[in-house]
Amino acid sequence: MKKYAFGVDIGGTTCKIGYFETSGKLIEKWEIRTNTEHDGAAILDDIVAALKGKMEEHNLHSDDIQGVGVGVPGPVNSRGEVPYCDNLGWGFVPVEKVLSEKLGGMTVKAGNDANVAALGEMWQGGAKGYQNFVMVTLGTGVGGGVILGGKIVAGAHGAGGEIGHLTMNADTEETCACGRRGCLEQYGSANGLARLAIKALAKEHGATVLDSVLKVTAKDVFDAYKAGDAVAIEIVKEFATILGDGLNRIACVVDPEVFVIGGGLSKAGQPLIDVVQQVYEERAYGACKGTKFALATLGNDAGIYGCIQMVLA
Amino acid sequence: MKKYAFGVDIGGTTCKIGYFETSGKLIEKWEIRTNTEHDGAAILDDIVAALKGKMEEHNLHSDDIQGVGVGVPGPVNSRGEVPYCDNLGWGFVPVEKVLSEKLGGMTVKAGNDANVAALGEMWQGGAKGYQNFVMVTLGTGVGGGVILGGKIVAGAHGAGGEIGHLTMNADTEETCACGRRGCLEQYGSANGLARLAIKALAKEHGATVLDSVLKVTAKDVFDAYKAGDAVAIEIVKEFATILGDGLNRIACVVDPEVFVIGGGLSKAGQPLIDVVQQVYEERAYGACKGTKFALATLGNDAGIYGCIQMVLA
Repeated sequence: MKKYAFGVDIGGTTCKIGYFETSGKLIEKWEIRTNTEHDGAAILDDIVAALKGKMEEHNLHSDDIQGVGVGVPGPVNSRGEVPYCDNLGWGFVPVEKVLSEKLGGMTVKAGNDANVAALGEMWQGGAKGYQNFVMVTLGTGVGGGVILGGKIVAGAHGAGGEIGHLTMNADTEETCACGRRGCLEQYGSANGLARLAIKALAKEHGATVLDSVLKVTAKDVFDAYKAGDAVAIEIVKEFATILGDGLNRIACVVDPEVFVIGGGLSKAGQPLIDVVQQVYEERAYGACKGTKFALATLGNDAGIYGCIQMVLA
Repeated sequence: MKKYAFGVDIGGTTCKIGYFETSGKLIEKWEIRTNTEHDGAAILDDIVAALKGKMEEHNLHSDDIQGVGVGVPGPVNSRGEVPYCDNLGWGFVPVEKVLSEKLGGMTVKAGNDANVAALGEMWQGGAKGYQNFVMVTLGTGVGGGVILGGKIVAGAHGAGGEIGHLTMNADTEETCACGRRGCLEQYGSANGLARLAIKALAKEHGATVLDSVLKVTAKDVFDAYKAGDAVAIEIVKEFATILGDGLNRIACVVDPEVFVIGGGLSKAGQPLIDVVQQVYEERAYGACKGTKFALATLGNDAGIYGCIQMVLA
């Protein structure tokens, strides 16, 4: 085994890059801009320049590098090809092939960013010791990664783990970013929680610190919840009911050992886990009531860790 | 490889047994009674007697038998143990271990019956050529089997593929056999379709041949549907909407290549597939719109075929 590897987590705004020992030690991380102009044509070249620069800086040769793992914010098929990626402006891009060629034949592995983050948590984070779990990323939307037998379930169309688009309520009028209605991420995300709060505050309600907040965020709601604010408690219960019910549906398909909760909203910590797990258990299918819950621990670094895990696996 | 194997599909009323060549050829099949008296204490002994009798009849020795596969109508963990099985009256039964001992050390593999049926369809039936699919069994209830990479997703608690208990409508008053509310099998099964029909016929409605049927069954509804009966068309559309939506939810978790539809209701054939697939496509998450649909082809024999596949895998 070679001594070093790179992880590149491509986001819509920046690419996060990690330089690792293959033992799992993160030596250095930095970010470059994601240039989405001209249909994202420069993105891969910019990454190549960044990696070559770092190799020069440390006097590394191709022989020293086990490989490069890449997380992409869109579907990635089993050949490491991206059919399309709205977030980057890409049409079809065979990422593994193109990047490997540009890097002189180096091994390149690509995966969907949420799935890759799940691998990172399995390798060095909150899912350590588990081989069968679902990673639930609660950020602007709801992302997911289904890992079974230690491997990503990428799906026939790269849509494995797209749990944010589980239909929770087909009868609603509100449209999801995906164009459909009543998706889990419309309610179970940080944005979703803020939206539930705004709705609740627009109705008649008791005294609450949230009334003094100009533009209520998910963090405001959870802070008030932790302080015992009655209105915030109601809002969080509504949120937890939808999220807990969504996880119940996932359990009836793959019955994971553990749900690992990450993303910005997971900064709310154990109180978030507790309220979601309580709803989950109350309403779960009998055999699945004992599913564990855990917090992700790698934060925004989960992606670059997972990239390395892909290269090493 | 040895030349023969047995498949035993244990049901609540009868055990179906198949005597196979390991090439996949079914030589002979027969049934014995499932004796659920005294907490099903005699079931495994009755199976052993049946297998030993057949071996004597054909002058077979243990050396000629590759193994015995067993399908159980309840959860089975990865060690081939049944934690409990209401249908058989069983508490904890380590099926593989007990049966192997009673058969003089023969190889025994056990799995959940719906999952095993999925393996059978993959090996010799409607899912031939696929390694990533979901088998949907539409009978009295809705059973399921999730196969990824050619292997059963058994789940951490044996509940992988329990798609009949996906919550479709948590707000309903009607209770499922599992004790929860609004499960897919309350609407998407043969019984569910009959129930939807009875409800529709109790309301004001146009002329329909179904009014002349004493106790409407799913078959009656599909027969009328195929004959162009307007009321039956509405009922089948309601049924297909719920089932199609359920499959959409599954696709957001594991994104299969194909849904293979089996069970008694699948005798309705291609018209059933067509109406469910149409709803599925209309409402599917973008990337998953192209999921294929196929009919199961092995009928009630899927289980014994799958038992052999378990032994050979």
